[in-house]
Amino acid sequence: MKKADIGLIGLAVMGENLVMNMESKGFTVAVYNRTVEKVTKFVEGRAKGLNIIGTYSLEELAANLEKPRRVMMMVKAGQAVDDFIEKLLAVLEPGDIIIDGGNSHFPDTIRRCAYVESKGLLYIGTGVSGGEEGALKGPSMMPGGSPAAWEHVKPIFQALCAHVEDGSPCCDWVGEGGAGHFVKMVHNGIEYGDMQLICEAYQLMRDYLGMTADEMHEVFAEWNKAELDSYLIEITRDILAYKDTDGEPIVDKILDTAGQKGTGKWTGIAALDEGVPLTLIGEAVFARCLSAIKEERVAASKVLSGPCVKFEGDRAAFLEDIRHALFAAKIVSYAQGYTLMRAAAKTYGWNLNYGGIALMWRGGCIIRSVFLGKIKEAFDNNPELTNLLLDPYFKETIENAQASWRRVCAAAITAGIPAPAMTTALNYFDGYRCEKLPANLLQAQRDYFGAHTYERLDHPRGEFFHTNWTGHGGDTSASTYVV
Amino acid sequence: MKKADIGLIGLAVMGENLVMNMESKGFTVAVYNRTVEKVTKFVEGRAKGLNIIGTYSLEELAANLEKPRRVMMMVKAGQAVDDFIEKLLAVLEPGDIIIDGGNSHFPDTIRRCAYVESKGLLYIGTGVSGGEEGALKGPSMMPGGSPAAWEHVKPIFQALCAHVEDGSPCCDWVGEGGAGHFVKMVHNGIEYGDMQLICEAYQLMRDYLGMTADEMHEVFAEWNKAELDSYLIEITRDILAYKDTDGEPIVDKILDTAGQKGTGKWTGIAALDEGVPLTLIGEAVFARCLSAIKEERVAASKVLSGPCVKFEGDRAAFLEDIRHALFAAKIVSYAQGYTLMRAAAKTYGWNLNYGGIALMWRGGCIIRSVFLGKIKEAFDNNPELTNLLLDPYFKETIENAQASWRRVCAAAITAGIPAPAMTTALNYFDGYRCEKLPANLLQAQRDYFGAHTYERLDHPRGEFFHTNWTGHGGDTSASTYVV
Repeated sequence: MKKADIGLIGLAVMGENLVMNMESKGFTVAVYNRTVEKVTKFVEGRAKGLNIIGTYSLEELAANLEKPRRVMMMVKAGQAVDDFIEKLLAVLEPGDIIIDGGNSHFPDTIRRCAYVESKGLLYIGTGVSGGEEGALKGPSMMPGGSPAAWEHVKPIFQALCAHVEDGSPCCDWVGEGGAGHFVKMVHNGIEYGDMQLICEAYQLMRDYLGMTADEMHEVFAEWNKAELDSYLIEITRDILAYKDTDGEPIVDKILDTAGQKGTGKWTGIAALDEGVPLTLIGEAVFARCLSAIKEERVAASKVLSGPCVKFEGDRAAFLEDIRHALFAAKIVSYAQGYTLMRAAAKTYGWNLNYGGIALMWRGGCIIRSVFLGKIKEAFDNNPELTNLLLDPYFKETIENAQASWRRVCAAAITAGIPAPAMTTALNYFDGYRCEKLPANLLQAQRDYFGAHTYERLDHPRGEFFHTNWTGHGGDTSASTYVV
Repeated sequence: MKKADIGLIGLAVMGENLVMNMESKGFTVAVYNRTVEKVTKFVEGRAKGLNIIGTYSLEELAANLEKPRRVMMMVKAGQAVDDFIEKLLAVLEPGDIIIDGGNSHFPDTIRRCAYVESKGLLYIGTGVSGGEEGALKGPSMMPGGSPAAWEHVKPIFQALCAHVEDGSPCCDWVGEGGAGHFVKMVHNGIEYGDMQLICEAYQLMRDYLGMTADEMHEVFAEWNKAELDSYLIEITRDILAYKDTDGEPIVDKILDTAGQKGTGKWTGIAALDEGVPLTLIGEAVFARCLSAIKEERVAASKVLSGPCVKFEGDRAAFLEDIRHALFAAKIVSYAQGYTLMRAAAKTYGWNLNYGGIALMWRGGCIIRSVFLGKIKEAFDNNPELTNLLLDPYFKETIENAQASWRRVCAAAITAGIPAPAMTTALNYFDGYRCEKLPANLLQAQRDYFGAHTYERLDHPRGEFFHTNWTGHGGDTSASTYVV
C-alpha cells in the first residue's frame, strides 16, 4: 500500500472532517486516535474505501508516512499537545514536521516551536477555522512556526483550505513561532465581537421592536445581500427560520447562557498586555460572562427596575439604523483587532502581512465575509495603514453610518436594552477622533497623589513636570521611587 | 542605642514618608537603601534628631532590629523584591518577618510567601495606598500572607495607618498568601475607574457645556459636600482651581496622555481569568491606552468627522444629571470589583471580609470616600450579599439616578463625546437586570458552526442538545472533540 502524505491524530469532529477533506483533494491520510476504537469505527465507516489508513500506535503511524513525515494533531489544546509532542519525538526523525491544528495559546506555540526545533524537527502551529463544515469543505488556515516547514505543508494546506472567487487560497504563511496561533486567536476574538453585535441587533429587534423570529429571519436575509454579507449573518438568518418539532422557532427555546472556550479571553488579555484598546471584543467576552449567571439575572430582574419605553416610529427606518450601527461597530472591531496584531508583531518580531490575513479570513472561517475583501483592499492600497478607520472606504462608510449608529445606541440606552458592543465601539470612535481627551485631568490627579509627573502642551514631549499641589507634600517625585 | 522596632528598605518618596509616619507614632525605624548615599542624606536631613537609624548594609540593618525582626521592603515591584528576599534570607533568622509593601502582583506574592515560609520565616505582602501624603499621614493598608506574622506587625500597622472618625484603623488582616496584594490590585483597578468617571464628567462639562476650569471647580466643590464626598473629588476640585505662574488654570496646560503602572491591567486580566464582567475598569484601562496615542488622535481628529451638537437647555439641571450618572456608574464599578474579589476568594481559598475591606478603603487611600461607609453597611447587613446592586440602599440610589444617567449617556453619544465608563456601567446594569439576554441566539450560532450544544428553557439545566442545522453536518457534537 502507498504511504500516506500526512498523518492526523485525533478523530473528533474537526479531525475527522479534515481527513475527509484531505482525502477528497487526492492525499492519502494515515489516522490515529488515542481511543483506538474510534480508528476502527472511522475506517470501517465514513472512511471506508477511501485512501485513509487506520493505525493503532504512533509507531505504526510513523511507519506509514512519506518522509519528511507530516503529522497533524487535532487534539484538545493544553497538556495533550505536549504529551503527543513527546511521544512523536520518540517515533519521528530530524526534518519531520509536527503540526498542531488545535486552538493552542500562542505562548505555548512559541515554546513548543523552539523545543521541537531544538530536537532537529520542524514545527507548525496553525489556526484552523470554519467549524465542522469548514473542516470538511475548506477551512481558513493560519499556519506559523518553523519557516522551513512551510514548503512541505503548503501543497496540502493550500489544497484543502477554502478558496475565494478568484481561486486564491485562504491559507498562507503567517510568520515565525506563535504567529499563526496569535492570528487565529485574534480571529476568534473578532468572532466573539461579530456574534455579540448580531446578538445586540437581535435583542433590539426582539425586545424593543417586538419582532418575531420569522420577521427577524426576513431582516437578516435582506442584510445578507449587501455589505453585511457574511457567514454569521447567513447562519443567523437560517437559525431564526429553524422550527422545533412543534413548529415553533427553536431559537426561542434555547437557554440564554453563552459558553466560551477561552480564546476570546486570551485576546482580551493580549490587548491588555500590549496596551491596545480592544474594547469591543472585551465587552463581547464580558457579555458572555454576564449571560452565564442566568439564575442571578433572573433574581435581579425582579429587584432592579428599568424604564418602560415602547418603540414608536418607523420600524423600517429603525431597522436601517440598526443595520448601519452593526456595520459601523463591526468596522471598529476589526480596526481594534488589526491594531492588536500590529502591536504584537512589533513585540514578537513577526513580519505580518495584514492584507494576506484578511484574505485568509475572507473564506472558510467563521468570520468570512465580503467585508474582509474591503480590508484586503485597504491594506493593498496602504500596507502601512495605522488604523482601518483612516482608510478612505472605511472612513466614508462609518461617517455615513454614524447618525444611525448614534440613534440606535441612544435608543438602547433610553429603553434600557443592553448594547455594550455597539456602544463601546461608538465611544472608541469618538475617543480616537478626539484631539483632546480629559487625560490632562487624570495626569494632574496622578501627580497630585503619587507625584507621577506630567507633560505639558506648551513644552516638548519627554519633559516631565511635578507640581507641589498641596504645598506640603515635598518635591520628591515618584520617578525616584526606586532604590 | 535602642534597637529598632522595624526596618525599612527603599528610601524613595513612599518609603521615606512611611518611615517618618512610623517614627511619629513612637516606633524606632532602621533604614537602608541600595544607593547608600540616600541613607546619609535622609538621616542627616529630614530624619535628623529622630528615632531613625541609618544602616549601610543588610547585615547592619539586621543587627539593629528587635526580634522577631520585621523588615519592610518599599522597592520597585518585580525582580528587586526577589533579589532583596534572597539577600534578607542570608541575614535574617527563622521567625523573622519579611514584608513587601510595594505594588507586587498577587501571584508573585503567593509564590514568595510559600518560598519564605519554606525557609522558616514569615512573609507579608501588603497593599499600601494613599500616595506620598497617605504614607506620611496614614495610609490604607491591606496585609496578607503568613497568618502567624500578623500579631507581630499589627501594632505598628494599625498605629501608622489611617483611621476613620470612630477611630477604627484602615488596616486589618485580609487573608493568606496573596490576598492582601489581590485586594490592593482591585483597589487600584477601582481607582482607575473612579478617575475615569471623573474625567468623563469633566470632559462633558468642558467640551459639551463649555465650562471653564473655575466654573468646574465650583461644581466639584459642591459635589464634595454630599454623596460623592471623596478624596478624588476633593483633589479634582483643588486641581481645577490651581493656577500656573501666569495665572491661567494649570490643568489646561497638561498633556492629555495618561500613564499607567500596570495594576489596572492586572485587574482586567484577573477579571478575564475569573470570568467576571469587570467592564468599567476594563474601559478605564483602555481609555488610558487610547489617551497615550496622542499624535495618532490628533491626526485622526483631522480625518474623521463627528456630529456638531451644541448643548441647549438648563445647564444646572444637566450638571445634576452628570452628578447622578457619575454616582450610579461608581456604584456599578464597586459592584463589579466586589464580584471579582468574591470570585477570586473562591478560586484561591481566601476567607475575605468584604465589609472589612470597605473599612480599609474608607480612609487613607486614594479611593477613600463616604460612599465606602455605605458599602461597609451593606455587607454588615448582609455578609452574603451577591451583588452590591441588590442592597436596598444601592438599589434605591441607582434607581433614583437612572433617568439622569440615561440622559447623560444618550447626550454624550449624540454629541460625539466619549463616555465609555459611564455607558458601559449602564449597559452592565441593564444586562444584569435582564432576565433574557440574546445569548440564546449565540448558543444557536455556536452549535451551528461548532456543534457546541445548547441547553433549553423547557429542560433542566445540564441537559445538552445539538441540532443538525444544515442537515448535512453530521450528528457528531463537539463534546467528542477530544481524543
